[in-house]
Amino acid sequence: MAAYVVARRRSLGWITSQLGESSPSVVRCATLWRSYSTSFREERDTFGPIQVPSDKLWGAQTQRSLQNFDIGGERERMPEPIVRAFGILKKCAAKVNMEYGLDPAIGKAIMQAAQEVAEGKLNDHFPLVVWQTGSGTQSNMNANEVIANRAAEILGHKRGEKYVHPNDHVNRAQSSNDTFPTVMHIAAGMEINSRLIPKLNTLHSTLHSKSIEFKDIVKIGRTHTQDATPLTLGQEFSGYTTQVRSFYPLWENANLDAWQLAQGGTAVGTGLNTKKGFDVKIARAVAEETNLPFVTAENKFEALAAHDAFVECSGALNTIATSLMKIANDIRLLGSGPRCGLGELILPENEPGSSIMPGKVNPTQCEALTMVCAQVMGNNVAITVGGSNGHFELNVFKPMIASCLLHSARLLGDASASFEKNCVRGIQANKERISKLLHESLMLVTSLNPKIGYDNAAAVAKLAHKEGSTLKEAALKLGVLTSEEFDTLVVPEKMIGPTD
Amino acid sequence: MAAYVVARRRSLGWITSQLGESSPSVVRCATLWRSYSTSFREERDTFGPIQVPSDKLWGAQTQRSLQNFDIGGERERMPEPIVRAFGILKKCAAKVNMEYGLDPAIGKAIMQAAQEVAEGKLNDHFPLVVWQTGSGTQSNMNANEVIANRAAEILGHKRGEKYVHPNDHVNRAQSSNDTFPTVMHIAAGMEINSRLIPKLNTLHSTLHSKSIEFKDIVKIGRTHTQDATPLTLGQEFSGYTTQVRSFYPLWENANLDAWQLAQGGTAVGTGLNTKKGFDVKIARAVAEETNLPFVTAENKFEALAAHDAFVECSGALNTIATSLMKIANDIRLLGSGPRCGLGELILPENEPGSSIMPGKVNPTQCEALTMVCAQVMGNNVAITVGGSNGHFELNVFKPMIASCLLHSARLLGDASASFEKNCVRGIQANKERISKLLHESLMLVTSLNPKIGYDNAAAVAKLAHKEGSTLKEAALKLGVLTSEEFDTLVVPEKMIGPTD
Amino acid sequence: MAAYVVARRRSLGWITSQLGESSPSVVRCATLWRSYSTSFREERDTFGPIQVPSDKLWGAQTQRSLQNFDIGGERERMPEPIVRAFGILKKCAAKVNMEYGLDPAIGKAIMQAAQEVAEGKLNDHFPLVVWQTGSGTQSNMNANEVIANRAAEILGHKRGEKYVHPNDHVNRAQSSNDTFPTVMHIAAGMEINSRLIPKLNTLHSTLHSKSIEFKDIVKIGRTHTQDATPLTLGQEFSGYTTQVRSFYPLWENANLDAWQLAQGGTAVGTGLNTKKGFDVKIARAVAEETNLPFVTAENKFEALAAHDAFVECSGALNTIATSLMKIANDIRLLGSGPRCGLGELILPENEPGSSIMPGKVNPTQCEALTMVCAQVMGNNVAITVGGSNGHFELNVFKPMIASCLLHSARLLGDASASFEKNCVRGIQANKERISKLLHESLMLVTSLNPKIGYDNAAAVAKLAHKEGSTLKEAALKLGVLTSEEFDTLVVPEKMIGPTD
Amino acid sequence: MAAYVVARRRSLGWITSQLGESSPSVVRCATLWRSYSTSFREERDTFGPIQVPSDKLWGAQTQRSLQNFDIGGERERMPEPIVRAFGILKKCAAKVNMEYGLDPAIGKAIMQAAQEVAEGKLNDHFPLVVWQTGSGTQSNMNANEVIANRAAEILGHKRGEKYVHPNDHVNRAQSSNDTFPTVMHIAAGMEINSRLIPKLNTLHSTLHSKSIEFKDIVKIGRTHTQDATPLTLGQEFSGYTTQVRSFYPLWENANLDAWQLAQGGTAVGTGLNTKKGFDVKIARAVAEETNLPFVTAENKFEALAAHDAFVECSGALNTIATSLMKIANDIRLLGSGPRCGLGELILPENEPGSSIMPGKVNPTQCEALTMVCAQVMGNNVAITVGGSNGHFELNVFKPMIASCLLHSARLLGDASASFEKNCVRGIQANKERISKLLHESLMLVTSLNPKIGYDNAAAVAKLAHKEGSTLKEAALKLGVLTSEEFDTLVVPEKMIGPTD
Repeated sequence: MAAYVVARRRSLGWITSQLGESSPSVVRCATLWRSYSTSFREERDTFGPIQVPSDKLWGAQTQRSLQNFDIGGERERMPEPIVRAFGILKKCAAKVNMEYGLDPAIGKAIMQAAQEVAEGKLNDHFPLVVWQTGSGTQSNMNANEVIANRAAEILGHKRGEKYVHPNDHVNRAQSSNDTFPTVMHIAAGMEINSRLIPKLNTLHSTLHSKSIEFKDIVKIGRTHTQDATPLTLGQEFSGYTTQVRSFYPLWENANLDAWQLAQGGTAVGTGLNTKKGFDVKIARAVAEETNLPFVTAENKFEALAAHDAFVECSGALNTIATSLMKIANDIRLLGSGPRCGLGELILPENEPGSSIMPGKVNPTQCEALTMVCAQVMGNNVAITVGGSNGHFELNVFKPMIASCLLHSARLLGDASASFEKNCVRGIQANKERISKLLHESLMLVTSLNPKIGYDNAAAVAKLAHKEGSTLKEAALKLGVLTSEEFDTLVVPEKMIGPTD
Repeated sequence: MAAYVVARRRSLGWITSQLGESSPSVVRCATLWRSYSTSFREERDTFGPIQVPSDKLWGAQTQRSLQNFDIGGERERMPEPIVRAFGILKKCAAKVNMEYGLDPAIGKAIMQAAQEVAEGKLNDHFPLVVWQTGSGTQSNMNANEVIANRAAEILGHKRGEKYVHPNDHVNRAQSSNDTFPTVMHIAAGMEINSRLIPKLNTLHSTLHSKSIEFKDIVKIGRTHTQDATPLTLGQEFSGYTTQVRSFYPLWENANLDAWQLAQGGTAVGTGLNTKKGFDVKIARAVAEETNLPFVTAENKFEALAAHDAFVECSGALNTIATSLMKIANDIRLLGSGPRCGLGELILPENEPGSSIMPGKVNPTQCEALTMVCAQVMGNNVAITVGGSNGHFELNVFKPMIASCLLHSARLLGDASASFEKNCVRGIQANKERISKLLHESLMLVTSLNPKIGYDNAAAVAKLAHKEGSTLKEAALKLGVLTSEEFDTLVVPEKMIGPTD
Repeated sequence: MAAYVVARRRSLGWITSQLGESSPSVVRCATLWRSYSTSFREERDTFGPIQVPSDKLWGAQTQRSLQNFDIGGERERMPEPIVRAFGILKKCAAKVNMEYGLDPAIGKAIMQAAQEVAEGKLNDHFPLVVWQTGSGTQSNMNANEVIANRAAEILGHKRGEKYVHPNDHVNRAQSSNDTFPTVMHIAAGMEINSRLIPKLNTLHSTLHSKSIEFKDIVKIGRTHTQDATPLTLGQEFSGYTTQVRSFYPLWENANLDAWQLAQGGTAVGTGLNTKKGFDVKIARAVAEETNLPFVTAENKFEALAAHDAFVECSGALNTIATSLMKIANDIRLLGSGPRCGLGELILPENEPGSSIMPGKVNPTQCEALTMVCAQVMGNNVAITVGGSNGHFELNVFKPMIASCLLHSARLLGDASASFEKNCVRGIQANKERISKLLHESLMLVTSLNPKIGYDNAAAVAKLAHKEGSTLKEAALKLGVLTSEEFDTLVVPEKMIGPTD
Repeated sequence: MAAYVVARRRSLGWITSQLGESSPSVVRCATLWRSYSTSFREERDTFGPIQVPSDKLWGAQTQRSLQNFDIGGERERMPEPIVRAFGILKKCAAKVNMEYGLDPAIGKAIMQAAQEVAEGKLNDHFPLVVWQTGSGTQSNMNANEVIANRAAEILGHKRGEKYVHPNDHVNRAQSSNDTFPTVMHIAAGMEINSRLIPKLNTLHSTLHSKSIEFKDIVKIGRTHTQDATPLTLGQEFSGYTTQVRSFYPLWENANLDAWQLAQGGTAVGTGLNTKKGFDVKIARAVAEETNLPFVTAENKFEALAAHDAFVECSGALNTIATSLMKIANDIRLLGSGPRCGLGELILPENEPGSSIMPGKVNPTQCEALTMVCAQVMGNNVAITVGGSNGHFELNVFKPMIASCLLHSARLLGDASASFEKNCVRGIQANKERISKLLHESLMLVTSLNPKIGYDNAAAVAKLAHKEGSTLKEAALKLGVLTSEEFDTLVVPEKMIGPTD
């Protein structure tokens, strides 16, 4: 009882904090809340009875986990995509189990309840944090308990009576050890395919448009951060475009393993307590439900004991982070200024950079994106450490691995979308500035080599550098060619590709 | 307006999700909510007017950030310790600013409003996420706006009128560039000293108690995971105890830099727009307010442009994670079984491991802790990447660095406490099993060397290994000594320390 | 001069190390060596003259790098695969350049000299370390200088005379900025395909053989390190086999980008100073020379400015490291003992574990392999940091990225081969021990559920656990079934798969 | 025999590389070499006889390791500081063992032989790679065997006869499990204190000198890479100076644990087979020999089973890497140009950047340094993974942890020295450019606020930005103040600190 009070106090503050404490509405809500908080029912598991809040659908094992793993607070709850994937999986399991003899009335009620979980309608009945047992058993039981109680209600029975049984009915032919890796794959597959990839595609398209928009703007190149030979701004953006495009094949491959579902392996990968064919049927059901090409894992032992597909997938996210950090860094440096930087790009102004300096545009979208990239690189290490530490038939870093991967995917997707919408889309070239820098550059002297020879060209460049003059001024001063000759020869526009 | 709707929809779902949608209470709350969601006031900044929810204290710049950085959702809000640290800092700033001429009525109202922020009473007026501008400017403005509006209310004025001005009054003599690193240090100093260290201390004490409790239990040692010479279980736990104790000096040192506050550096570290002495006074005020030894940073340029103190501190957390992972791994392996593992330790049973196998105790606390350790190792890399990427006068990975460090500290503290309470405290030695393994071990043969010589001893061991017999059986079979002689010589209890 | 002395002393050791194996040459070299150390010739670049050891083929720019980058000593020399890849590339460049007008006599001499570099015959003329300019310019010039001097000798001219010019002839139509990424890809492609993948294939085959060899050995499963339901040892090894097999598609994909060569982009990606078609021809020449499917990069700007293909490839190596660490950890734990561990596997004895304890086998191959895995995980972070830090038209972390990737690939390949040969191949199952543990396990009680019901089965298990007896003893004591019934029902061999 | 051939071919190169520098010896060695390659002697261990090259001092266990761990080639040999530290330790052990009864003649010969190892004279007798047994046992036996054979020779006996015994005499009262961590600490302590810290000190001094040299140069500040308020170049460098200075306390603390030696713990930490006081005496002897404050570890169990001190120390190196990457990045960006970059700093020219563009200085020292920093960050992860994976009484990632730490320390020291000498020392301020940028900046408008009010000041700035004019031009055009007034008010030199 005392333990629950702690849990309650923890969540109480958090929820009321969302409502504006001083407003009248809070008072009414707080009243409602109080009534909630004093009403409990008894639930039981093999450890005995335990008090559970009356208005919550969860059962005894969820309640124990709440009390035993007071780690990190609300921010650390199991990510929503995992909860929803449990809904999908349990719905499919009931459907397949009916083929193998599960009572149809119960099966249908389970399917209906699971559908509500899949739609996020029962999110507040999933209070557990990531930092629990490393097999995710407690979140699996949370799903079983919520769905069982909800299904029972649908059938006109009370919570806690176990008319629909969390283990025997909802978890039938399943084990946490195969369900949790299955929901990891469902959640990751959906997040990456429905949310991340479309956002990267949009970023790719916008970068590509920019590379076309800027295709005729010749500018100075920079290597080692030093002036180099010219290229077009469009060419520069085509490099970024290619970086983002190069993500695609990453996924095709990473997905090959990601589509493989562990379901059907049960406790250690053997499939004990399942019927032959169960694994194939349930993977097919999940594929239909999600419209994604899930299949049953070819080796269930590996699917429980290791998460190489996630390590691989995280490596792909890490590569994306690396690319995006390079692009965002370039854009903020090319947009630096307005007077004392490179100033070649004009970035959109989204918010006041300072109340004093008009024209100061802080590249805040680049900053948000590069911070996200750093986080993704860190999460990749966490996933690697977790992935390498499996023991025997089970890797027990599952919730952390899932949480980090979903975190990385969500942040990369959202930050890419924000960067595209609030920054890249509105980038303008500062043509005047670009042209000025280009024509001041000493490296255009290269064009003179064929006409006046390397030594004379070098002398021109050295004089210009020493005197701070233009190449043309230096050339004329040295008398190596006429003004007309210079203008004919020094044409940056001809330096941006191979010659015939 | 459209943008706000998005923001609203995002948070709407989240909040209602906490209340149980189908219950009557939700209906009433949803009604209240609707009234909230249709009422707005206008706030202004240099970009012009913008609509802000009437019941929120934040202003225009916060609202713009909400709309421009739709990254990650609610889970990614700026950590609460940062919000509270802003309260502390703004309170201290008002106090010091009054010494430098700030109107006392306004100053006192700011102090009162800031105190409410410090106490977490206004948490729901801080909606911004970590993934914003890299200087944390928007969270600083969020604090300025909330405190200004709240202070104005205290003085009988309306929100949005700027009777108390967010910049001129609340942010007086400050810049985001020095306030954000200051709140980073305040938040980290408080979290580590008030929450993490006490929890590690408790874990250390409990491990130490166990090392005393187990001091007379002689057991087999294991090196390379293979049987080795014996030690006591107390000695084994003393190693863990030392690992946890070795954290202490880490902090003393990390803190040396952590106590240094950037405040007074303003925009680039020069202290432009402050009066001489402001930096020292404000650090002193923060020290008094927090009862922690904060001082002003000796070099403000470094304090804005780099976060070496955080990288260093994260390195300390990384070391702790390394230690705890080793300890947790040992404990779960020593507690493996019950029949087919090492089985030397009996870990507390906190929840059903399985509905079938009594005696199966899953080492779930070890699992939660080791997952936390992996996350901390990952966060360390994220912080390192962020720390290495500062440019010129400002590092713009501040919110990410702060968020990762606070995440690591909180998780390590909570997981250590959970591990201590739900696992270590209840560990029992399985004396029978320990004794059985010890006496079966072949390496006790070492004791025979002085009496029968290395060659005979080796012969005994080899025979025992080959025949699967005990050393004694082998020794008697070979006739190299009598039963009594064997019992006198082979005494593991004498093998656990140097000899006189 | 003083600087050279330092450089000379440093290089002394490794230079002699390159002397040919056949003894007469050693004598000659040793003689030369004496003269070398007092004999120099003058070489020149645009910075002026500099003294170079007479017996070395390198020129002025190599010598300057030796003196300016005294970092790390000989261990840190540019990896040999990079040096050899320079030989391949320069040979191909000469071949293609002849098509575009390079003097055939000079072209052929360059091809011959470059071939010697490709074969490793001139390794001791490549003294530069990884920690030089980030574009690898100095190693490119090292290759140009050595090949030019060697080609000149072939044509009967002296070193240093520049009859064959390092820039105009050897480096014709090339820039360091496109040659270095090209040799990175050539070296990595060859190392991974010729050395790493075959070794992983062998490991996979051996693991697969073991999974077949052990297919009938039923053993206890372990989840959470605790006893679980049974599986066969063959099934357990099939999981390892699948982990190693899952490497394959990784490569197919990583290779897609890895095969793309930057050559033809020259200084900034535009291809300035090349003729149209040069890029395609040189990629084709490299493909023919190496018998690997290299093609020209579709976007040269990306190919110079970023190394996403290497970050991606390193992510694949990181996944392999994760897998191998899991497998090696399992094998050493399953082989732990001989008396006080799990003892299910008997690992080959390769060296004395201890002079006292026969039967003590330290799993040293597992240890070498897991150390390699940790190093690969670290190198992945180094590559990620380097990959994310490109600026504008050039990433200047190239030598470090190349060095880390080649390091990881070499170590993983060698360690996998050593692990396969000296450990996996000789693993034997300790059938007696496996059987003993299996039959002691309490979880076999699961089989009784259908016959005597869950409650009776639980009572049997609890009694056995409490009294430390067998399940059968407990069942008979409780009188729930007969000895014959027990033996009919409790058959682990029937618990290793789904039922019909 | 076949295996040896492989090993021999591998070692051939590096063995000759160890030949003494003085030329006559080279001839002799070359002669010996010939005989070596066909001449072997037999050495024995408990596995039986094995052929060892006659001219090598190592014995049977070293030879077996050579053959069993063909991983990585010569680059991967155990780092020299570890080999030398073995010399120091074995010398001290002999000294202390004589106090406990070791035959003085043998003891003295061991001390003499060990001294030769400590001086690096016998480096070519240490052929083993890092990737061996994770306890470093084989390198410990390598040291024991070499010293035993060498000591025997000193006493007039032959190699292989074991007149001086590797185990009984040289390794007396020691175990690999305590010697290897001891040499790790000795080697790291010496490298960091004798090589790394002095080089960082020099870098700090030079940065400090620069901050004084540049103290009167007022320049534009940059935050978010955008123009900000001014500071002096000296202030900017004082930030770098502080970053480097902040390394000091890191060491004091890291050293606290680093000075603790495991010696005396023997196999599992109990000190079995040592006499009381042995641990204290040997730590004292090492302290005297190295002149460093080594002490005996307070808990030997922790000292064998974990390497927290190394993880911590690596965290310190990681912080240094983070700092140096920031500094090197700033310097290359501030030195970017010469015409199209920021151009505020003039970096020393050390080598041709290009044969065409005079004035192009590639910041190659910054590039080498930042590559080193990335490697150090990677090594930190490798060490973390290794440090977290100890099992029971022994961490078996010791050689990898030692190798990575020594690698990081060496690279950071050398790269810092190179950066200081070849870059920082010669940095010049481009005063003209700095002044030009400063006075063009729009943010100086801030100074006008008190005189003409915020709105007018903003109007001035906006007009200047729009028209690309100077602030003064805009102010005069708007008629808000006179030329004289403007010149009196806009004085960047007054904006670089707090006011009275």
